[in-house]
Amino acid sequence: MTAPSYPVIRLRPKANARAIRHGFPWVYENELVTDRRTRQLDPGTIAVLEDTDRQPLGLVAFNANSRIICRMLDRDPAATIDHDWFATRLTKALSLRERLFDAPFYRLIHAEADGLPGVVIDRFGTHAVVQPNAAWADATFDMLSDALMAVTGVTTVIKNASGRARQLEGLDNETRIARGSAPEAPIPVPMNGATYMADLTEGQKTGLFFDQRPNHAFAARLSQGARVLDVFSHVGGFSLAALAGGAASALAVDGSEPALTLAGAGADAMGVVDRFATRKGDAFDVLTALGEEGEKFDVVICDPPAFAPSKQALEAGLRAYERIARLAALLVAEDGYLVLCSCSHAADLAKFRGACTRGIGRAGRQAQLIHTGFAGADHPLMPQLAESGYLKSLFFRL
Amino acid sequence: MTAPSYPVIRLRPKANARAIRHGFPWVYENELVTDRRTRQLDPGTIAVLEDTDRQPLGLVAFNANSRIICRMLDRDPAATIDHDWFATRLTKALSLRERLFDAPFYRLIHAEADGLPGVVIDRFGTHAVVQPNAAWADATFDMLSDALMAVTGVTTVIKNASGRARQLEGLDNETRIARGSAPEAPIPVPMNGATYMADLTEGQKTGLFFDQRPNHAFAARLSQGARVLDVFSHVGGFSLAALAGGAASALAVDGSEPALTLAGAGADAMGVVDRFATRKGDAFDVLTALGEEGEKFDVVICDPPAFAPSKQALEAGLRAYERIARLAALLVAEDGYLVLCSCSHAADLAKFRGACTRGIGRAGRQAQLIHTGFAGADHPLMPQLAESGYLKSLFFRL
Repeated sequence: MTAPSYPVIRLRPKANARAIRHGFPWVYENELVTDRRTRQLDPGTIAVLEDTDRQPLGLVAFNANSRIICRMLDRDPAATIDHDWFATRLTKALSLRERLFDAPFYRLIHAEADGLPGVVIDRFGTHAVVQPNAAWADATFDMLSDALMAVTGVTTVIKNASGRARQLEGLDNETRIARGSAPEAPIPVPMNGATYMADLTEGQKTGLFFDQRPNHAFAARLSQGARVLDVFSHVGGFSLAALAGGAASALAVDGSEPALTLAGAGADAMGVVDRFATRKGDAFDVLTALGEEGEKFDVVICDPPAFAPSKQALEAGLRAYERIARLAALLVAEDGYLVLCSCSHAADLAKFRGACTRGIGRAGRQAQLIHTGFAGADHPLMPQLAESGYLKSLFFRL
Repeated sequence: MTAPSYPVIRLRPKANARAIRHGFPWVYENELVTDRRTRQLDPGTIAVLEDTDRQPLGLVAFNANSRIICRMLDRDPAATIDHDWFATRLTKALSLRERLFDAPFYRLIHAEADGLPGVVIDRFGTHAVVQPNAAWADATFDMLSDALMAVTGVTTVIKNASGRARQLEGLDNETRIARGSAPEAPIPVPMNGATYMADLTEGQKTGLFFDQRPNHAFAARLSQGARVLDVFSHVGGFSLAALAGGAASALAVDGSEPALTLAGAGADAMGVVDRFATRKGDAFDVLTALGEEGEKFDVVICDPPAFAPSKQALEAGLRAYERIARLAALLVAEDGYLVLCSCSHAADLAKFRGACTRGIGRAGRQAQLIHTGFAGADHPLMPQLAESGYLKSLFFRL
């Protein structure tokens, strides 16, 4: 088989070719020469990127619909994007996860940092949930799926098309079972000694959030014998880990009944239902009500959805984080712990920490900051995009 | 016994009384009214701080020799700094460490964040090493020592006066055994499954660096079956943890013969001398030489002293970090790991990460950033001073 001959596209003089040459993985739309020929390229077309001197910089995925008009796929312009190419990337990604984890439950591919731009793959034993959030990956989805099954041995591949990024790339939102058969029930996922129930087809995102794993573990260390409150609990990420770590009791609060049902099923599988309770409701309302009821907890965790998903939403988001911190701090017993998390890209660590500190202060409490945690190591970053580390978990002692 | 009557000192109108009221722990020299009476107060005098409206803000430690002219001791202006006061602070600090650690080896007091400004106490079983790095703590050292022994049960208290901050406070540098008797031999310290030998009277700092404990643990997870290079090893912090984690071999490089001897003694105590080697020399020279010898390692760790201890030293320091990163990256085997650490206050996380990324790039390598670690939870921070988190450990996969 001869190598495919990819079309050639070219940087404008104003583009930062040096940054790209030094590892920056993206070309923005105003950096590329877009003549009539270029504009006719389909979204997801694989092309050879050249600088203004016609020196090739590598193979890229092109999408005229996206502000990120090119994503670097391979620094070798002579590479071929085929089954073997995918298998090589997947094998390298797998070797990191196998080093880190005892059981095959993890984020296997974290997009650019794992060499597959825009692609997210979460593995749940023999099942994989793939989010092809860029046009090139949607176009090569079958090849990717075959390589994924060959490299990892998974037998079911679920294509999850719910990612917001897909709209920006001009892609559909059709989630489907692409290989194998749909799991008939939620899948039990072992993490930090707890058991979580992941619904791979109906749940939020890809069924479970692997990113908080090290922060769950740290909270569990603080929870021996403790009364634990887990607000925005989803399927019980922090509360079930705390119970596995010896918590006296855990109360999970979430607005989603299906999430709380899965959390309860996890507690059941762990044999800790006698120490576990749930409360459905708006987090702000429940925090306020618990305060009025005079409740105190030794460990309070708040892991809300992104309050500041964009720069425009930053100020309002920071006020929401401050309010959560104040309401939660009021519920922390003397010498207790408060864990505050943010998954907002726009709120950087210093801004988020400032909002939390103000909220704690407004509750009339003093705090030590004992730990700052980020997403787990199965969520690697490109150093050039390290500011994109979105997840922050702050551990305060009050 | 009646409460002592402390002198009163007062903020200038320009001072940021609001920040102090909201938890900021310091008053700078230009924020305080310094009349003749104030100037006559001895360094370390305990005083009541008032705002310009003569409202008391709390008890502070005064030192006209220091740019930080006041350090907040207690928000209650009616407090008395006595044995019970110290015992309360120490008890609270102890409860955090006992929750975190199985064995009594940790930083017990981390200055401001543990309510004892300028005081550092490291605990090694029945021995404590105290650094009273502020004048007030030097003046109350006996009371602190008595409370420390009563609360923790330690029997030996070593006063370590080598801290650079003591000069700024106008204090001597006389290190001595203050209580009990000097340990006759280095003390074995269990951490992360390894055994370290800590020389409490002759070693660097307080004999051992507890701050890297979680980063040692993370490196150990990566080291199963690996060839490990530990540069600036001191007493073997990373290399012995890696061997405990199943490393095939570890080479410790340091400029200090006594430090390497202690590392060897630790390896001996662990029964891993057959997998452990040391090499004395300048780190830059040894890294260069290993490169010329064609050596490769699966995990390379560089934990240098502060290259950028001050703002003035920042640019030179970042160049040194970049150079270390480049030399070290050249020694990392394909699909290996590179751990780069900084304990420089002046180099913040983004600047340090940038220097590392440039160095790795100049070595012709591509990297994933899989983990960012800070000092362990026995090194808490005041949220108001959280930018002072000095220790950063970056884990790259090449």
